[in-house]
Amino acid sequence: MTRYKLTLEYDGAPFVGWQIQENGLSVQGILERAAAAATGGHTRVHGAGRTDAGVHALGQVAHVDIGRAWAPGKLRDAINAHARPHPVAVLAAEVVPDSFDARFSAVKRHYHYRLINRRADLTLARGRAWRLARHLDVEAMHEAAQLLVGKHDFTTFRSTECQAKSPLKTLDRLDVVRDGERVTVFASARSFLHNQVRSMVGSLAWVGEGRWSRDDLSAALAARDRAACGVVAPPDGLYLMRVDY
Amino acid sequence: MTRYKLTLEYDGAPFVGWQIQENGLSVQGILERAAAAATGGHTRVHGAGRTDAGVHALGQVAHVDIGRAWAPGKLRDAINAHARPHPVAVLAAEVVPDSFDARFSAVKRHYHYRLINRRADLTLARGRAWRLARHLDVEAMHEAAQLLVGKHDFTTFRSTECQAKSPLKTLDRLDVVRDGERVTVFASARSFLHNQVRSMVGSLAWVGEGRWSRDDLSAALAARDRAACGVVAPPDGLYLMRVDY
Repeated sequence: MTRYKLTLEYDGAPFVGWQIQENGLSVQGILERAAAAATGGHTRVHGAGRTDAGVHALGQVAHVDIGRAWAPGKLRDAINAHARPHPVAVLAAEVVPDSFDARFSAVKRHYHYRLINRRADLTLARGRAWRLARHLDVEAMHEAAQLLVGKHDFTTFRSTECQAKSPLKTLDRLDVVRDGERVTVFASARSFLHNQVRSMVGSLAWVGEGRWSRDDLSAALAARDRAACGVVAPPDGLYLMRVDY
Repeated sequence: MTRYKLTLEYDGAPFVGWQIQENGLSVQGILERAAAAATGGHTRVHGAGRTDAGVHALGQVAHVDIGRAWAPGKLRDAINAHARPHPVAVLAAEVVPDSFDARFSAVKRHYHYRLINRRADLTLARGRAWRLARHLDVEAMHEAAQLLVGKHDFTTFRSTECQAKSPLKTLDRLDVVRDGERVTVFASARSFLHNQVRSMVGSLAWVGEGRWSRDDLSAALAARDRAACGVVAPPDGLYLMRVDY
């Protein structure tokens, strides 16, 4: 068996999420089917992060074990050929040691969340960003975001369905940057809780709109209570950008 | 009557193009219908450029005459409300003198053409860019592009259906820039012939792939013959970015 690391890109819109589920098409399912068709044997595809329905990836990582050794470029092309017409693509394949695990070897995950701050409906960015019509005070958002950086109990900012044993996580980066009507939230950590980025972004949007002060965000974090969260931002704007090993 | 300048954004994919046609939905048609519904009277919407089916706009400009004076922001919001759910949005409306004509007052039009140079199929950029699998020599493309800048007879690079009286046009800018796998062609001129940008980009792609030399492009231009054109790039990658007045 040879283990391959796959770097993946996908449009999350048509999928129930990364993980195989009974109720619809998943990214993992498409890839396992394509890898089986390409290599002639069933194989599990293990992802670094289980992105939710509608969440996109420009740099998801997975590993897969293949019975015979393939030239990495040929494996990439063969899986891509069998993944058509679904919007999932293997950008790169490389041979890795058997000790490499896409999920457990990851030391940092990087997400972007894209907001568009304008009155007009989205056209080209529909399903690719969260539109907020009210003017966002991005400096206030960025300043408030720094309260969340570091090691905290993120109970307020995780889904009630989150299966992680501990709500304690260390957030390394949470920057909010405006470029014209586009506002991007950059989030990096070793790992995130379920819905953590979307929960933080939704609460920061309230800060940007002036509904919450910095102190309100601080109190929400301290409450360690899911009910204290602002809103959960929609999946459309979230992108898994990169995973470091 | 009050004349308004509208700045427009749209996803070209679902439309037969800018111009009203009998065989399908057009951007102009959606806007005229929305403006009529919003203001209670039929009105023509005149665009700066008649983009083809599938071509996108981030900064198309149009003018429209409205019977009673509206606050520009209200007119923008009202047209947008009636344009739903089509991916067409008025980004800005402003009052202009009656002498303003979106098409004839324009002094420069700026287009971008987006290429993605990689083996893997497109996912998020599907319908938004032209994927080319073979490595593109972008420096060769940029150098060759400079042969087209200036005043030329662009017969080779215009559709046989082009209705312009003269094939003589002055091209002000044709730059080709790479950013990782993304390659963008920046094209600016007072006006363009029908399919001119897509014809130039298709021929430049042949230069990038090494099928054509700089001299081949030069000969194609000098031939003044549509049959001498390389390929016509698909509409998916073309964006009308801005119109100057």
